Amino acid sequence: MNQEVLPILVFQTDFTYKEGAVAAMYGVVRSVDRDVEIITATHEIPQYDIWSASYRLSQYVPFWPKGTVFVSVVDPGVGTSRRACVALTKDGYYIVTPDNGALTHVMVKQGISEVRMIDETINRLQNTRGTSVFHGRDLFGYCAARLASGVISYEEVGPAYSVDEIVSLGLPEYTCKEGYARGIIEIDDPNFGNCWSNIPVEQMQKAGFEYGSNVHITVTKGTEILYDRDTRFDRTFGDVEKGEAILYNNELMNVSLALSQGSFMECYNVFFGPEYVIEIKKIE
Amino acid sequence: MNQEVLPILVFQTDFTYKEGAVAAMYGVVRSVDRDVEIITATHEIPQYDIWSASYRLSQYVPFWPKGTVFVSVVDPGVGTSRRACVALTKDGYYIVTPDNGALTHVMVKQGISEVRMIDETINRLQNTRGTSVFHGRDLFGYCAARLASGVISYEEVGPAYSVDEIVSLGLPEYTCKEGYARGIIEIDDPNFGNCWSNIPVEQMQKAGFEYGSNVHITVTKGTEILYDRDTRFDRTFGDVEKGEAILYNNELMNVSLALSQGSFMECYNVFFGPEYVIEIKKIE
Amino acid sequence: MNQEVLPILVFQTDFTYKEGAVAAMYGVVRSVDRDVEIITATHEIPQYDIWSASYRLSQYVPFWPKGTVFVSVVDPGVGTSRRACVALTKDGYYIVTPDNGALTHVMVKQGISEVRMIDETINRLQNTRGTSVFHGRDLFGYCAARLASGVISYEEVGPAYSVDEIVSLGLPEYTCKEGYARGIIEIDDPNFGNCWSNIPVEQMQKAGFEYGSNVHITVTKGTEILYDRDTRFDRTFGDVEKGEAILYNNELMNVSLALSQGSFMECYNVFFGPEYVIEIKKIE
Repeated sequence: MNQEVLPILVFQTDFTYKEGAVAAMYGVVRSVDRDVEIITATHEIPQYDIWSASYRLSQYVPFWPKGTVFVSVVDPGVGTSRRACVALTKDGYYIVTPDNGALTHVMVKQGISEVRMIDETINRLQNTRGTSVFHGRDLFGYCAARLASGVISYEEVGPAYSVDEIVSLGLPEYTCKEGYARGIIEIDDPNFGNCWSNIPVEQMQKAGFEYGSNVHITVTKGTEILYDRDTRFDRTFGDVEKGEAILYNNELMNVSLALSQGSFMECYNVFFGPEYVIEIKKIE
Repeated sequence: MNQEVLPILVFQTDFTYKEGAVAAMYGVVRSVDRDVEIITATHEIPQYDIWSASYRLSQYVPFWPKGTVFVSVVDPGVGTSRRACVALTKDGYYIVTPDNGALTHVMVKQGISEVRMIDETINRLQNTRGTSVFHGRDLFGYCAARLASGVISYEEVGPAYSVDEIVSLGLPEYTCKEGYARGIIEIDDPNFGNCWSNIPVEQMQKAGFEYGSNVHITVTKGTEILYDRDTRFDRTFGDVEKGEAILYNNELMNVSLALSQGSFMECYNVFFGPEYVIEIKKIE
Repeated sequence: MNQEVLPILVFQTDFTYKEGAVAAMYGVVRSVDRDVEIITATHEIPQYDIWSASYRLSQYVPFWPKGTVFVSVVDPGVGTSRRACVALTKDGYYIVTPDNGALTHVMVKQGISEVRMIDETINRLQNTRGTSVFHGRDLFGYCAARLASGVISYEEVGPAYSVDEIVSLGLPEYTCKEGYARGIIEIDDPNFGNCWSNIPVEQMQKAGFEYGSNVHITVTKGTEILYDRDTRFDRTFGDVEKGEAILYNNELMNVSLALSQGSFMECYNVFFGPEYVIEIKKIE
């Protein structure tokens, strides 16, 4: 790795700060190397939620300098046979994670050029072999610190395996044609209660949808209709009254549903994942 | 800015760590400059609560080295016509924020010597112009990183405007005379359930109030009486029994209400803001 | 202290990020020294919970480089007569804390070689003497920054006192003999709802317990029986079905109780502390 600038390690987990796990993990990193930068992306990924872990990586990885090493530990299968890996994305980032589906979104959106299994005989913290439950500290954090600080090269992480073997949760595609779009609620913005679709605003505009118009939106989960209304399509929350629904373009350039200063998710009982389908129709 | 020491960027928002927004914002900062220090003040300002954002800045800004750049993003009007600005305080700090009232307390307590509107044609992250909802990442974080790292001078932030035009939420004044004080519950200490007034302990002491004595306190909201009792005035929580109320001198040298190891706010249903009035009378 | 590498300051408190206290404390540190590294261990220790503060230190301190300075502020007695101190552990770490029991676990597990009372006439932030409620900012954070950055030596913290005078909350010992073990639920893993005992897995194995077998476990609180069942003893959560109980070896090499992807604590109403007793019997 380029050692001219300080290497960066960015962490996301579902550990929370309620106990000492984060501090132990960061201590291991600092014991490997005194200079590597430690950044907290978040330790509040919902518990065991590999889908959210996967989405969040794709949300923020591209904004970091090339060469940044990301560690993602949402690992309900810790200590079982799932692989521990380091992926190298096509645009030049490293992601250290259990290979349990956490690479699903990055694989589709950025692409992965290479993946290696972490060799536990070398890249595992010594004297922790008796415990199988804290790979964030003993394996992922430790190995990532060694990689970021240049103690090991990428090749020394462990043996490469085929990118085709990386576990995927499966990402449904959107469709968008003249006056009609269909996709999924791909993720939430849990703080503000917004629902982010996988439909790019650019495709919507090519399909004839225009800011400032009303569109007809249906959100379903299986046979259940959760939302079925004419809704304003516009730029930002302030374009509608407080409490009113809006279809807007989110920060990742996908159309999304919100209540201005309210929670769309709670109001309409909409969550996220492949089973939450959104249909948008132009009103003539 | 003085480049002899590492520049410092301090962030407060209402984003929480529930999703990837903070990580994306910090990634933009690190992409602008590899060395500027990134400090998290808090990402748990209550949602849309500009008053709290404003108070918190005044609470901690003065403890930092001169020249520190603060970014505050509590921005219910994101993407609308409110100004995005960088203020320079009279004591030498920069504050990057929407000009929506977030400068209210700093303006009164520290004073602002200059304010500039952020020029979006220069100081906005390229390739994000299609989205209007994440100025924390695209505008405030990006511009602050450029300013802190010396990519732009303060003058290059954008055109100056009159300090008199800065949006203020309005701060009521306290009164304090012999044996009597009146002010507001200016803010809460939400973790411990304490209520902080805007009445300086120094003025209380000049008005004849003494530690160790009982005083009569009334807290009202409009015509509603929330608290109306004789109460101990003393130095710290340990001076009263667990569960007992106390009027104490808080860390910003204003008298405040607490229940020892309990929540005064919950117990008496007291919140904060100009409508929560506190009156304190000496008992003869 | 060794000035060849950047000194490190690691903080744990019960302040949360709901207000500006952490930011003020970190500002004081940065005003003392521009280079010392500031690491957040956690600001979510349960309020006033000195036992948890004490346990967490013992959980993560040993993973940091020797010479790291830890600041722990869980201080219900702030401003009263409890001592403010800096302890030096036998393995070479500094801990800055109120001497209120927060050193209980470190004292037993790592040992303390020396302890000094903080001299407030020197190592307290100037101009804050009128307030008694925020020693995190004014005393502990300030003194720790001075120590870590080399402004003062350890001897200049203040006068030494006997290690025997350090306040202890008392730690019950475990017993372990052929086919039988008895200890306490020493702490929780609150995020995942697990209960960590003080019984080392190594002792269990010496006493004839084997991974993959069933054992009989009783958890009591006084005369109340909270859990009384045959339970799988194995390596990790994935070794049992989702929702099933397991006795596993935790990351600190003590046997612990969990429900796979559930909360043992909530399900069986088990909390932690010396009054929660766990007995484990081998099944023939």
